[in-house]
Amino acid sequence: MKILIIGGNGTIGKVVSNYLKKKHTLIIAGRTIGDINVDIANSKSIETMFQSVGMIDAIVCIAGEAKWAPFKDLTEDDFHIGLKSKLMGQVNLARIGLEYLSEGGSITLSTGILADDPVPMTTSAAMVNGAIHSFVKAAALELEHNHRINAVSSGLVVDAVDKYREYFPGHNPVSMDKVVNAYVKSIEGKISGQVIRIYG
Amino acid sequence: MKILIIGGNGTIGKVVSNYLKKKHTLIIAGRTIGDINVDIANSKSIETMFQSVGMIDAIVCIAGEAKWAPFKDLTEDDFHIGLKSKLMGQVNLARIGLEYLSEGGSITLSTGILADDPVPMTTSAAMVNGAIHSFVKAAALELEHNHRINAVSSGLVVDAVDKYREYFPGHNPVSMDKVVNAYVKSIEGKISGQVIRIYG
Repeated sequence: MKILIIGGNGTIGKVVSNYLKKKHTLIIAGRTIGDINVDIANSKSIETMFQSVGMIDAIVCIAGEAKWAPFKDLTEDDFHIGLKSKLMGQVNLARIGLEYLSEGGSITLSTGILADDPVPMTTSAAMVNGAIHSFVKAAALELEHNHRINAVSSGLVVDAVDKYREYFPGHNPVSMDKVVNAYVKSIEGKISGQVIRIYG
Repeated sequence: MKILIIGGNGTIGKVVSNYLKKKHTLIIAGRTIGDINVDIANSKSIETMFQSVGMIDAIVCIAGEAKWAPFKDLTEDDFHIGLKSKLMGQVNLARIGLEYLSEGGSITLSTGILADDPVPMTTSAAMVNGAIHSFVKAAALELEHNHRINAVSSGLVVDAVDKYREYFPGHNPVSMDKVVNAYVKSIEGKISGQVIRIYG
């Protein structure tokens, strides 16, 4: 398969890419590094990327940001960071990407455990993840050409435990192998409209 | 209790208001009708409303719109209708309203079954509902002054069946009594961070 991975150089993206590249042809997109540049918060940038990449068999997004801060400190503009990037960035990738997706091709978006099991300071991040969960279920009902769409929702991954442990008291770290498998299941399997939860 | 109900004149809002007014003092806010006007898609309008209303014991929102259309027809701007109104409208009501909420006061937002069980043409509406579900869980972790926040997620209500039946094949209509009870549970009970699902 020819697979476009947006965010293929991040903590999770790198491991997923290293696994997938053994079997597939990857095009890695990133904001500043990768085979091609894209700013997912800008739908024109997404459009330009797809025009350059052409037809593909799978779109994988492991990118998108949202601001972490105490709820009482988050301004309306702060919420819009997540709405523009992790939420509408991924929705626009799906919306625009469908035109470049071959018969039977898949779209895999990324969310996280905060949607179901949030921690303090994550009202914006949790909200954006929950939005993508419901979006994926709804979009799957309408896809044509045997297209599929899923989201991978992972818990705190082992590779990020040192950085985030204090924010996630009592959360069980998730092995990178399991997270990689979730992406493989969405890309190489046949499921659609699923939130693949890997919560350790 | 002194209760502010935004959208207290809609299909569900009217029934909830009629029930609550037997026991409580209601202030009904609406875009064009009610005791006070508010456009929840505009945070300045929300701020003005709260300044006029002053301290209250409960905030209930049964308002907010999102565009219904086939996924392939929804533009980025179409998605922003729901993001501005039903999503950020309710987030801003909570964010700003907390300053006007008395000790132990509650915030009750409204979503719907589409978050969990969508139908075609509802990618935007489902997404916005799912976002509020996760938002409520996350926000509840950070509230002070014994404040509480919940969402009522109702299925297709009996009073709207004639209008929407064709869009919801096989969905079981939900009695208005059960929906009213969900709001009562959030307002008069002690729960917080809950999505009260009334799916028939």
